[in-house]
Amino acid sequence: MDAIQIALLGMGTVGTGVVKILANNALNIEHKVGTPVVIKKILVRNPGKVRATATDAEMVTNIDEILSDPDIKIVVEIMGGELPAKDYMLAALKAGKHVVTANKDVVAKFGRELFAAAEASHVDFLFEASVGGGIPIIRPLKQCLAANQISEIMGIVNGTTNYMLTKMTTEKMDYGDVLAEAQAKGYAESDPTADVGGFDAARKIAILASIGFGARVTLDDVYIEGITNIGIEDIEYARELGFVIKLLAVAKQDDRGINVRVHPAFLPTTHPLAAVNDVFNAIFVRGDAVGEAMFYGRGAGELPTASAVTADIIDVARDIRHNVSSRILCTCFEHKTIYGVSKTESPYYIRLLVEDKPGVLAAIAGAFGAQQVSLHSVIQKRKVERATELVLITYRVSDENIRLAINTLLGMSIVRKIGSVIRVEAEQIS
Amino acid sequence: MDAIQIALLGMGTVGTGVVKILANNALNIEHKVGTPVVIKKILVRNPGKVRATATDAEMVTNIDEILSDPDIKIVVEIMGGELPAKDYMLAALKAGKHVVTANKDVVAKFGRELFAAAEASHVDFLFEASVGGGIPIIRPLKQCLAANQISEIMGIVNGTTNYMLTKMTTEKMDYGDVLAEAQAKGYAESDPTADVGGFDAARKIAILASIGFGARVTLDDVYIEGITNIGIEDIEYARELGFVIKLLAVAKQDDRGINVRVHPAFLPTTHPLAAVNDVFNAIFVRGDAVGEAMFYGRGAGELPTASAVTADIIDVARDIRHNVSSRILCTCFEHKTIYGVSKTESPYYIRLLVEDKPGVLAAIAGAFGAQQVSLHSVIQKRKVERATELVLITYRVSDENIRLAINTLLGMSIVRKIGSVIRVEAEQIS
Repeated sequence: MDAIQIALLGMGTVGTGVVKILANNALNIEHKVGTPVVIKKILVRNPGKVRATATDAEMVTNIDEILSDPDIKIVVEIMGGELPAKDYMLAALKAGKHVVTANKDVVAKFGRELFAAAEASHVDFLFEASVGGGIPIIRPLKQCLAANQISEIMGIVNGTTNYMLTKMTTEKMDYGDVLAEAQAKGYAESDPTADVGGFDAARKIAILASIGFGARVTLDDVYIEGITNIGIEDIEYARELGFVIKLLAVAKQDDRGINVRVHPAFLPTTHPLAAVNDVFNAIFVRGDAVGEAMFYGRGAGELPTASAVTADIIDVARDIRHNVSSRILCTCFEHKTIYGVSKTESPYYIRLLVEDKPGVLAAIAGAFGAQQVSLHSVIQKRKVERATELVLITYRVSDENIRLAINTLLGMSIVRKIGSVIRVEAEQIS
Repeated sequence: MDAIQIALLGMGTVGTGVVKILANNALNIEHKVGTPVVIKKILVRNPGKVRATATDAEMVTNIDEILSDPDIKIVVEIMGGELPAKDYMLAALKAGKHVVTANKDVVAKFGRELFAAAEASHVDFLFEASVGGGIPIIRPLKQCLAANQISEIMGIVNGTTNYMLTKMTTEKMDYGDVLAEAQAKGYAESDPTADVGGFDAARKIAILASIGFGARVTLDDVYIEGITNIGIEDIEYARELGFVIKLLAVAKQDDRGINVRVHPAFLPTTHPLAAVNDVFNAIFVRGDAVGEAMFYGRGAGELPTASAVTADIIDVARDIRHNVSSRILCTCFEHKTIYGVSKTESPYYIRLLVEDKPGVLAAIAGAFGAQQVSLHSVIQKRKVERATELVLITYRVSDENIRLAINTLLGMSIVRKIGSVIRVEAEQIS
């Protein structure tokens, strides 16, 4: 059999990584596939600007040179962004080419359309690198855990915010300083909104939820809260209470349907995700048969992401070699109800400033009690701006009731300020 | 397309789990495969003794009733043990049936023969459950990390010993008590040798090394040391020095070849494997592209193991439905040198009892120095049996030199006893 020829769309960080891996591990990959895998063409904006690399591929500037080339069997989209990436992939699928992508934006938003096109053309559409960088998670969810009914997927899927929260925890730096440092190191963009606002994590959990629950979940279904309001005080109180604060991407399934959200959360230090620090990512999965499982590794970067992209290329190449395709396509065959965050329940951490007067704690506790909110623990030890800082952890309560209680508090003259309201992901407190 | 019919060999713990999962998730699995998967026959020793289960399968006592049944496309071996399991699998493969197994003993010892038979018959031979129970690790290594050159696989792959070491660490119980408790809870066999002696872990790391390095590694290639000599003192000293003691299954690949071993080791508390406690397993992998990755979950048990077995069944069923097989068979296509443990290097922890006299520490340090062993840290704080207890951590040193140094120490009159010699897996000490 002849070599399998492929094309890359884009030659940025990940593209450079794919070129390196295919060159360095060429023999190894040829053994695994049964035939060599060769890059024939690379779509670039400006061929003059491409860094010297270990490839003889032809640099082209027009997508049609790839779409109309019958030798090219696999199109690897690593240019990023929604457009024109989505249009190029769709055109490639319609032209009967297998597509591999690392593009979470497109998969989260246009997954249905792309899967339909792949199915119609009897080709593969793989996207392992779209979530968790180098961490194997899409294929394990689709194949290794295929016998499970998944009830929970909980991940640390954004390296930037995990780096920032880790620094705040270990070096007691405050949010502004740590963001500036992350930007200086290139871990955060000059406009950090996609990361710190939780939007990047939201796209990833939409993809994971779709696969895990077998039902389409899109970005619009995800409740999103970022880390911009997390103070160093909250991190200190978390530590004191036996928790760490992480930006969690959470997808849960129960009798009522599916709930998907991204928000900072208190996580017990004993939880497997609590030890995931710096730019590392991890995804924790709970299934009815497997119990708990976790997948850990580097969630971004040239080579880790290229590792996942190249694994997909090898998988498609094996399919081509065995004359099979669409073995595993869209698994979102069910329609499931998606319920909003107001219907979710959890314990909550609340930090507030109250007047330093007798009877204040009784009044606060009474306001919570009126909304059926019971208190699991209370810390009162600091004076801030001549007021008393109160820190409370509630028992499990609905999002709706906690909001009603907070509203009541805001109307009380003894309450100066609500500092933070953060969910607690802990089964122990129920 | 008609239902895909399968047979189970064995109806013990894992078999019961597979029956449950196939019944509970039947619709879900039918969606994923595109056709139902049905158990037609189950091979049992005594049909009268089979527990009531959710299956209409026919109980048979003769393997020929399965081998000669043309309806049965997949044979699922979950009886365990080497024989007759190996012969049954070989016969099934030769009869053109796909085989799924959870049997680490057979895969570690007879893998080559079984793969050859599968290849000759153009059928699948899958064994995800043979290592790590429910944890996806075989398929991730074969597929998701296929683009990597793997340099290291390090796992906690035996739940019994991990439970015991965790108990010794958290509850300061000594070895004998914790073994008795593990036996009472059913976590350890009445003859615990396979677990505490490291043999179970050795089979598993032989399988992982074969796949990760693409070269055949068998049980005989593995250096094995169990946990029977680990004292509560060692665990306490480990804690004091910032380590935990784990039974590690280690496979490393470098310019010299491959080294594979199972032994207790000091692991820094910051290592991702250090937080893997109780009966949980985890496998840490280092590859040139992915960097570090880790897979965590339940390494044993009815449903976790059945989760992995059923995932393999679904995968084969998808292959049958798409009329393809042997997409991914034996990946051990290279011959690599396997070097013995005497050629490995690491830091070492040594606990010994010496006479309480002036000049003793100098003499001990001199004996190490004569074998080119430098000391990283020394603790001397306890008297035991009117002698002084010395605890040393060396810098990186060859296994050969540490043995020479220990031999010298044993010949010195001031040395009363060498309590423990344990490897340290820490890159920080080099």
